[in-house]
Amino acid sequence: MILDKINDPMDLKKLNNEEMELLAEEIRNAILNRVSKNGGHVGPNLGVVELTIALHYVFNSPIDKIVYDVSHQCYPHKIITGRKEGFLNPEQFNKVSGYTNPAESEHDIFKVGHTSTSVSLACGLAKARNLKGDNENIIAVIGDGSLSGGEAFEGLDNAAELNSNFIIVVNDNDISIAPNYGGIYKNLKLLRDTEGKAECNFFKAMGLDYCYVKDGNNLQELIKTFEKIKDIDHPIVVHINTVKGKGKEYIEKNKEAWHWSVPFDLETGTRIAKGNGNKTYTQLTADFLYEKAKSDKKVMVITPATANILDFTPEFRKDLGEQFIDVGIAEEHAIAYASGLAKNGAKPVVGIHSSFMQRAYDQLSQDLAINKNPAVILVVRGGISSSDVTHLGMFDIPLASNIPNIVYLAPTCKQEYFAMLEWGIEQKEYPVMIRVPNTSVTEKDVTIEKDYSNLNKYKIEKRGEEVAIIALGNFYELGEKVKKELKEKKDINATLINPRYITGIDEDVLEKLKENHKIVITLEDGILDGGFGEKITRFYGSSDMKVFNFGAKKEFIDRTPLNELYTKYHLTEELIVSDVMAVIEK
Amino acid sequence: MILDKINDPMDLKKLNNEEMELLAEEIRNAILNRVSKNGGHVGPNLGVVELTIALHYVFNSPIDKIVYDVSHQCYPHKIITGRKEGFLNPEQFNKVSGYTNPAESEHDIFKVGHTSTSVSLACGLAKARNLKGDNENIIAVIGDGSLSGGEAFEGLDNAAELNSNFIIVVNDNDISIAPNYGGIYKNLKLLRDTEGKAECNFFKAMGLDYCYVKDGNNLQELIKTFEKIKDIDHPIVVHINTVKGKGKEYIEKNKEAWHWSVPFDLETGTRIAKGNGNKTYTQLTADFLYEKAKSDKKVMVITPATANILDFTPEFRKDLGEQFIDVGIAEEHAIAYASGLAKNGAKPVVGIHSSFMQRAYDQLSQDLAINKNPAVILVVRGGISSSDVTHLGMFDIPLASNIPNIVYLAPTCKQEYFAMLEWGIEQKEYPVMIRVPNTSVTEKDVTIEKDYSNLNKYKIEKRGEEVAIIALGNFYELGEKVKKELKEKKDINATLINPRYITGIDEDVLEKLKENHKIVITLEDGILDGGFGEKITRFYGSSDMKVFNFGAKKEFIDRTPLNELYTKYHLTEELIVSDVMAVIEK
Repeated sequence: MILDKINDPMDLKKLNNEEMELLAEEIRNAILNRVSKNGGHVGPNLGVVELTIALHYVFNSPIDKIVYDVSHQCYPHKIITGRKEGFLNPEQFNKVSGYTNPAESEHDIFKVGHTSTSVSLACGLAKARNLKGDNENIIAVIGDGSLSGGEAFEGLDNAAELNSNFIIVVNDNDISIAPNYGGIYKNLKLLRDTEGKAECNFFKAMGLDYCYVKDGNNLQELIKTFEKIKDIDHPIVVHINTVKGKGKEYIEKNKEAWHWSVPFDLETGTRIAKGNGNKTYTQLTADFLYEKAKSDKKVMVITPATANILDFTPEFRKDLGEQFIDVGIAEEHAIAYASGLAKNGAKPVVGIHSSFMQRAYDQLSQDLAINKNPAVILVVRGGISSSDVTHLGMFDIPLASNIPNIVYLAPTCKQEYFAMLEWGIEQKEYPVMIRVPNTSVTEKDVTIEKDYSNLNKYKIEKRGEEVAIIALGNFYELGEKVKKELKEKKDINATLINPRYITGIDEDVLEKLKENHKIVITLEDGILDGGFGEKITRFYGSSDMKVFNFGAKKEFIDRTPLNELYTKYHLTEELIVSDVMAVIEK
Repeated sequence: MILDKINDPMDLKKLNNEEMELLAEEIRNAILNRVSKNGGHVGPNLGVVELTIALHYVFNSPIDKIVYDVSHQCYPHKIITGRKEGFLNPEQFNKVSGYTNPAESEHDIFKVGHTSTSVSLACGLAKARNLKGDNENIIAVIGDGSLSGGEAFEGLDNAAELNSNFIIVVNDNDISIAPNYGGIYKNLKLLRDTEGKAECNFFKAMGLDYCYVKDGNNLQELIKTFEKIKDIDHPIVVHINTVKGKGKEYIEKNKEAWHWSVPFDLETGTRIAKGNGNKTYTQLTADFLYEKAKSDKKVMVITPATANILDFTPEFRKDLGEQFIDVGIAEEHAIAYASGLAKNGAKPVVGIHSSFMQRAYDQLSQDLAINKNPAVILVVRGGISSSDVTHLGMFDIPLASNIPNIVYLAPTCKQEYFAMLEWGIEQKEYPVMIRVPNTSVTEKDVTIEKDYSNLNKYKIEKRGEEVAIIALGNFYELGEKVKKELKEKKDINATLINPRYITGIDEDVLEKLKENHKIVITLEDGILDGGFGEKITRFYGSSDMKVFNFGAKKEFIDRTPLNELYTKYHLTEELIVSDVMAVIEK
């Protein structure tokens, strides 16, 4: 294998053309080896194999600095920069993350996992280089749908003022995660159709120099281009046309499905199924919204480029027609747009990943909450998880619940979730957010309220005494277990409360607990700092009630197994009861 | 006066051309009457008088809906839509806010005060109209620097896909707050220079139809254009060239200084001075950064279009040359750019308004905090204030302090502030934020630490017993008063603590307080929910310590006088002591 000799980008430079072509093939196989066994980003990485080889052949990383946008297309880069074992050897898979990571290699400049950031970040590198009087090349690699994000635009706008070396590679593969949406992608098509010659050119309109590479999977064409612009003295956009998923027919043919994949059979492309066959909360959500939209023309379903994680399938999207929109990677627009829709009498429902909601804090606050427009926002994947550090879902409670006027709800079972969703869509008073349960689907044999307009009313699910457990959303089931443990181990008949509302406290219920309770335990699936439990603790601050808050620590965790995290944060019934008793019995 | 007859846009439609020209003059005088006596946005409003008359003459508000970006250019709109007394009669000034406000009038569609939101919001209105089968015109008025914000770009990108009536008026006055910066403004200049005929056209590249109005202060030209495009069946950009500050020579000549003004002498333009002649914290900051940058070429000062509120004067900016940048309205870029600068060895300092920091939450978290790059962010105007609801500074603590890795500092006097700033710039370990004191400048006669790298160490300024007052940043002085009040009224010798760090608690100090204190009082200049005090309360949750948190309620307040707010939130020494004693002596 050629790859045997490649341990550093320097090794690339010794290869002849034929060897480099072979290397591209081997890199593709290495990528497919990992993603088929381990899951991961498939299409983005297969598309940029030649681009990555050409960049490392022409430039001198890490002195020259390459910043990958989103960085879900960094696998070839990792293979070339000393981390090939993470792709060849299953035992090493977990040592190499799916995103760039400075802790892994000096060739990775930033930890990146959200989109549209590369141009601004690289702009900063370039400016610092200038201030220091250095002269390395700075290269941002953006594309794969990332151009539609506002941060990318702000970066391009400012890059145009940088009077020095700066290379922006736009990897145009004609698709985001789902098909591209938005006016800018029409201009990219025009540029592809005219081989970069059209006068009306988005990048030139942004004040940037521009060149076009017709076949972005042609290694020699890429090398020639990069050799020409290496050490250029001003910012330039290199627009290259690549094939997402290049090299595997079933992937090239179904780009959206192969953006990311769970493990699959390499021969056939058949996914190795994991689920238990039961529908998930997101699948049930899609079913519900489908029926809702079909019966009410004012219902509008919106997602910012994450139709896949919400189970808005291509059929769902096609069938809903005008009542569905994927706005592309444009979270700010998604929220402001929903506010406008609600203001003019429509019923917008935005589905968004907990971590990506961070991109729209100001829109939640200013465009939506100050205006009190009744849009509904479904937050998926909220909760402590073993995901990459860039995709953690444990910050949305501090983020959203401290904005006035927002009603953020935490359902604890299927019936409650859909009752809240129905209420949220039909009510006209509040921006309503719902934390879609991050658990398997549960059904509770209890009466579920239909109306949530009497805000911040907690539900006492089981009345007891001495200890009250306030168990929020995903952690309601943990609350049940804590109650059982207290009964079995300490013969305490605890009260169990489903607070339902994240954004406010039920002062009446909390006040009454003082009568026959000494201890309150709060459980939340997120960080404690700025979260739900602290509001309860503040209420009891000057009273005799003892309050214990359980949740995650404020820290960035990275691909830590969930059971380790639960142990670390004491989020098991045994550890909780033992913590509480240690203080009480002291 | 023509204005006497104008109580509604319908009244406009009865005027002939000559009367409308007179009306424009009268509206200018009304604007100048208000801003010269009351302060406010001067240039933006003087520039759009003709535009506003033309819009209301041609379209039928409120059925047709006009959304003003930032809405600091809505004064003529307010004058036409029944609120002229707020401009003519000083006693009515306070009844009319400086921004659009649906509570004031059905002609105001949204409460707006941050930039770059109009296209997305109006897109939502247009889509809702389509879903309902209605046919009103939807108009977004954007410009005055707002185009550089990412949200505007996301909106334009999505507007291009709206297959129905949508009118985007781009008010191009060739200046933002400070002079425009960024590639897009070069294209606007090209379009002005070619009277809209250049082939390379940013808006067309975004997939939008386009027309150009050469003289955007020519009423008849505007009316003709709007009559032509009224009821258009697809999205179109109307690019109009206006003169910011039109009609007053000294304003037209000095556009930046007259974007917003305190009261001034109408004849001469002389500002009616308010300050006591002493330098403010922001002026001292500019002085400090100037010296710092002059002595170290790696220091880079950055602001997103708010050089004015940071006292980065035109001279300061010119003198710093390459070491200063106003990135325009582009908060996301400002933070990501700073992260890149820090990564490559420069020393970036970003100055930003507390309220505008909301636009860069994800950049703080992902681009900066996860990467732990040592950029410094100075947050100005943080604290409870009597400002417009869209510019409140009381949310930055919950926003920033619950993001891991960030060190957010709250200085309590001049020496401490500059020691923290010096440390922040020179250290290499953390993203450091500093809440620039929102108070008059105070100097303390105490030793100030130079090194803040031993995180979360609180400073016990005065040792006492029974009650401990933890007084954060701006409220340190209030803490001193509470201590005095406790001594005088209750003969309690309280402990006074300057916590300095917003982002973490000093467990050692808090633990030791248990020995001879029964009560802890926390004081913070911001909302309590998700804030500083709750972290202290959580620490003591399971102990016998009584904790009282003082700060603002989680709510949107709008131009409420500060003393009213302090009374409402019990933020005076008398109310605090009385609250605490009421519980203790119960």
